[in-house]
Amino acid sequence: MANQNRRMRLGAFLINTGHHVTSWRHPQAQADAGVNIRHYADIARTAERGKFDMIFFADSLAVREAHMDALSRSSQYISWFEPLTLLSALAMVTERIGLVATATTSYNEPFHIARKFASLDHLSGGRAGWNIVTSALPYEAYNFGRDAHYGKEERYHRAREFTDVVKGLWDSWDDDAFCYDKASGLFFHPEGMHTLGHKGEYFSVKGPLNIARPPQGHPVMVQAGASPTGIAFAAEYGEAIFTAHLTFAEARAYYDELKGKAADLGRNPDHVVVLPGLSVLVAKTAAEAEEKFDYLQSLIHPIVAREVLSFTLGGVDLSPYDMDGPLPELVPPPGATSSFTTTTKLARDEKLSIRQLAMRIAAARQRVFIKGTPSQVADHMEDWFRKGALDGYNLLPPYLPGALDDFVDLVVPELQRRGLFRTEYEGRTLRENLGLPRPVSRYAGGKRRD
Amino acid sequence: MANQNRRMRLGAFLINTGHHVTSWRHPQAQADAGVNIRHYADIARTAERGKFDMIFFADSLAVREAHMDALSRSSQYISWFEPLTLLSALAMVTERIGLVATATTSYNEPFHIARKFASLDHLSGGRAGWNIVTSALPYEAYNFGRDAHYGKEERYHRAREFTDVVKGLWDSWDDDAFCYDKASGLFFHPEGMHTLGHKGEYFSVKGPLNIARPPQGHPVMVQAGASPTGIAFAAEYGEAIFTAHLTFAEARAYYDELKGKAADLGRNPDHVVVLPGLSVLVAKTAAEAEEKFDYLQSLIHPIVAREVLSFTLGGVDLSPYDMDGPLPELVPPPGATSSFTTTTKLARDEKLSIRQLAMRIAAARQRVFIKGTPSQVADHMEDWFRKGALDGYNLLPPYLPGALDDFVDLVVPELQRRGLFRTEYEGRTLRENLGLPRPVSRYAGGKRRD
Repeated sequence: MANQNRRMRLGAFLINTGHHVTSWRHPQAQADAGVNIRHYADIARTAERGKFDMIFFADSLAVREAHMDALSRSSQYISWFEPLTLLSALAMVTERIGLVATATTSYNEPFHIARKFASLDHLSGGRAGWNIVTSALPYEAYNFGRDAHYGKEERYHRAREFTDVVKGLWDSWDDDAFCYDKASGLFFHPEGMHTLGHKGEYFSVKGPLNIARPPQGHPVMVQAGASPTGIAFAAEYGEAIFTAHLTFAEARAYYDELKGKAADLGRNPDHVVVLPGLSVLVAKTAAEAEEKFDYLQSLIHPIVAREVLSFTLGGVDLSPYDMDGPLPELVPPPGATSSFTTTTKLARDEKLSIRQLAMRIAAARQRVFIKGTPSQVADHMEDWFRKGALDGYNLLPPYLPGALDDFVDLVVPELQRRGLFRTEYEGRTLRENLGLPRPVSRYAGGKRRD
Repeated sequence: MANQNRRMRLGAFLINTGHHVTSWRHPQAQADAGVNIRHYADIARTAERGKFDMIFFADSLAVREAHMDALSRSSQYISWFEPLTLLSALAMVTERIGLVATATTSYNEPFHIARKFASLDHLSGGRAGWNIVTSALPYEAYNFGRDAHYGKEERYHRAREFTDVVKGLWDSWDDDAFCYDKASGLFFHPEGMHTLGHKGEYFSVKGPLNIARPPQGHPVMVQAGASPTGIAFAAEYGEAIFTAHLTFAEARAYYDELKGKAADLGRNPDHVVVLPGLSVLVAKTAAEAEEKFDYLQSLIHPIVAREVLSFTLGGVDLSPYDMDGPLPELVPPPGATSSFTTTTKLARDEKLSIRQLAMRIAAARQRVFIKGTPSQVADHMEDWFRKGALDGYNLLPPYLPGALDDFVDLVVPELQRRGLFRTEYEGRTLRENLGLPRPVSRYAGGKRRD
């Protein structure tokens, strides 16, 4: 099925001290990473040195709440930079790598979001991407005047309208609207300005946006939909898709489903780039990689592991159960996402105790975790890629900066040697590097096209 | 009254190609400045070379609407970077200068604003400032689901609650909450985290904020209130105040009123820094400065000048009146601000025709405009400063980068020679450079203090 000459795409999912839940306790970890711009500048430049397509930041509009005592042992989602300000800063210390930030459609206004990503796209010379989320967790609501989160269907209804408004606002100005004609005094062609005039179910936005059309036309649309509603949304709007499947069969099934649905909607499936998450610990020998892993795992307090598992299951309280007993039959709580299903299935399939499951989840946050030599890691990456389960990976370094340095120094050259990954950036913009087309304005040709 | 050893404060109010309405037509102007990050990096570094306390960005959440044909001859408020993303980028190419952005309390959420300014403060090592506005113009409303702008009283009520919430969120974490204790696994002290739990008239915000307390405690609070309501707000919340008085008597009266009101509220008047706007064209000779000015003025189309005047008057339609006749008696329209009063007074006092008034306003946007040699410019600046009308200036360069280069190269050394301005930054943070105290947390000492 797959073209043998195609190249992998790689994203680097950066999060403070790394994805391993107690990475911050590692002797080489930068414990204050969440508010340390030098740390982020360093790891962004490392990812660019490794020719990654993009760096990616997740987000949440609240401190992760439950059981703060235990989670105070984690560095994740407690204190961290706001992604748009962070990526704008990183735009100045990098030149080619894409800059993807998460922003929710549930607690934002489309005008602000359209504007900020357009601004980042201009600042970075066309390297911005927007990871569209609807927010799964209930406690963001409490910071925005609500007693409860929106229900899932409403969230996605709102997300569709929100995203349509944002795309419309990005087309407010034709690509050639600004003529800057000093002689005549004409700053822009009035006919190159378009007023959206949107009045919908959730939003009323007149426009135009107060910034020129982004260099990429539209920043790259990133999504991570995994539920049926989420997959439908991703198939319609997504251009780069982050996923979290733990087995090849699941990854492959998702890949085929998503590409099929995109094709059904008249889209070119090659313009939907699927990137499962992957955690990697690489070392010169397999034994050394295992040692590194065991050391990291030894830093996890069991209660922290249980809390991460509880969180992954949507907030289930696991404290009444024996840590060394099996995961009981659970009813998905209101906050549950597709992670509930994949995680409970993993426990059943591999007959894991709560402790074992918790330690597994805490290690890699439901992503595949590969340990080994550069060749072993590359073998795994090549295998799933060649067999058509993905277009590349979103790398989740277990600790930062060390595990990213190791990947760039050891695995990237191996992937390049095999012809699986670029040795130089193909283009200047994120779209060019991902092989995505630049969207034509809905107003191109003098009349609205949508 | 004034301490003879005190030094001026200087802000640089940066806006695309400059404050002169048709600056962009100048042969040396960077016409695409609004979305040109190299331009902004250059002028920010120039201001830092000149030891300015801060660079400042105004903002609007809409394209300036009325009479787009005419205003298409202007580069202002048509297409420009979003200020928080821009300043985050500029934080990476500067080291000491303060970074002040405007954000409105009318079309934002306090959680987002608290977070973004805290993020900028961390990114920049304590150089962030927030210019609090309530938005005077009606057409921002149309981009945020409203048919009309909030009334003035409601805007300020909302602004007070908004600002109190933001300050409360900035105190979510004690300065020493994050201990990063790798040995024990304690990432932060749970007792160092504070949940705001705000439920008010306009906002309900639980907290805590998802980022550590800003390096400055709170970013510097900037304000530009000029109406009685605005002055009351500035006296209570403002730490740096931008003003726009055209005569010494008005500037001095405002200064005394504001400092008096701050003192009445129990504040130290020295912690309210008053900075009137000032446009400067400096050259080696007075004749050369006049030539530069006349050339700039010659670029203004009269209809553009009239539109700027119309806008300054809150949207009055001036097209029915003779350009060479006097300004008629006008009723302040609903969108009018204190600019209406200062501008109509100027016309009466100096018996200006509409054309003359329009050209005057278009040149400097209601700020004092000084032309001359370095010594002449410094004389004016020193005079108002010594006589107690101000603590410094917010410089509005007529065109960029040229007029800022000239000010830094010619006027700053003259001010330094006279002992009126610093030769090196005193501190690392904007607060340190402005001589402002670092706010103590409302939770300091184990109990809430507010």
